[in-house]
Amino acid sequence: MTDIIEKLNWRYATKKYDPAKSVPADKLERILESIRLAPTTSGLQPFEVFVVTNPAIRSKIKDISYDQQQVVDCSHLLVFAAWDDMTPERVNMMFDLTNEQRGTVNEGWEAYRKQLLGMLAARGQEINFQSAAKQAYIGLGIAMVAASFEGVDCTPMEGFDPNVLDELLNLKERNLRSVVMLPLGYRAAEGDWLVNLKKIRRDREHFITEIK
Amino acid sequence: MTDIIEKLNWRYATKKYDPAKSVPADKLERILESIRLAPTTSGLQPFEVFVVTNPAIRSKIKDISYDQQQVVDCSHLLVFAAWDDMTPERVNMMFDLTNEQRGTVNEGWEAYRKQLLGMLAARGQEINFQSAAKQAYIGLGIAMVAASFEGVDCTPMEGFDPNVLDELLNLKERNLRSVVMLPLGYRAAEGDWLVNLKKIRRDREHFITEIK
Repeated sequence: MTDIIEKLNWRYATKKYDPAKSVPADKLERILESIRLAPTTSGLQPFEVFVVTNPAIRSKIKDISYDQQQVVDCSHLLVFAAWDDMTPERVNMMFDLTNEQRGTVNEGWEAYRKQLLGMLAARGQEINFQSAAKQAYIGLGIAMVAASFEGVDCTPMEGFDPNVLDELLNLKERNLRSVVMLPLGYRAAEGDWLVNLKKIRRDREHFITEIK
Repeated sequence: MTDIIEKLNWRYATKKYDPAKSVPADKLERILESIRLAPTTSGLQPFEVFVVTNPAIRSKIKDISYDQQQVVDCSHLLVFAAWDDMTPERVNMMFDLTNEQRGTVNEGWEAYRKQLLGMLAARGQEINFQSAAKQAYIGLGIAMVAASFEGVDCTPMEGFDPNVLDELLNLKERNLRSVVMLPLGYRAAEGDWLVNLKKIRRDREHFITEIK
């Protein structure tokens, strides 16, 4: 049985956090672990997660995020940063890690490595980054479910200047690009205009098509 | 408390399905409902989900998916198809639905609609499609968690020819573009080379960075 639907109905894009409430370490770790376990294309995990609690840096991030208060009022600010490219070094790092951890070298796996390296080189940097960014959104989706199971509120945020954020977090020198942020914390319901409004989704017939 | 981590460790990219086993309707509906409830940018839900059970169509999809057997052996084949653009018609449809369902017209909300319409028109079709595709990956991530809670196996698949798939499902005339597939079903463990291999992820220190 599942209560994931109940959790998805409980969550909403929190507009106001209680700055006095902090997410306990064990809850935060389970949310981060869920993201770490997210499935990604060819198992590459082509993104990283930054957990920003530093007040001065969060204040600067707020300045480039349409002044949204959640950035500074939340407990922990997650930043998802995707690989700026899927380079041979990175791909080989993940394939080597796989061989090392499984203690085997598999012929089919090695053939796939070769094929993948050729494909990634052919399609180029920008498409590889776009693909990496999509994988980060798998992690984002799972993070929001994991947070809900912990009773932790969150707010997916795309409205920020990624170039300045990359500079603030020194992402360029790590060959990463910020793609989406996720404040985590606890709602301050009395000051949140959205908390009591109905969740809106298109109905099933405008969202699902069966091809029988 | 949560057992999402246990579920994420249970799941794996299933390589062989038992074609005799079908996902019961109630389980399928809860997985689809979880996708429908997925949060998306500005609440637009800029994608749709196709549930393909038709054998002839699945056979054709297999032909353009590196002949991967999961496409035909799975119980239900989900195809995530993103809006090919975020047009004023579509944005207004979602904002109007929101007003209708909430029974109110909110000044701030209407100002945001206007701002969003300007931004989407300025950045153009291809970037709007890329953004829509990312939102579909939020749904994909949540779908994989939902399936795991139902004890249903799944396999995220990007390896297919999207242009031919769009033709097979008549997506172009609906202004949609296929972005990722997700077979659902039950593992045939005895014939699956991956099922018993260790799940590989980079360790925490190579994935999470704390900025305190």
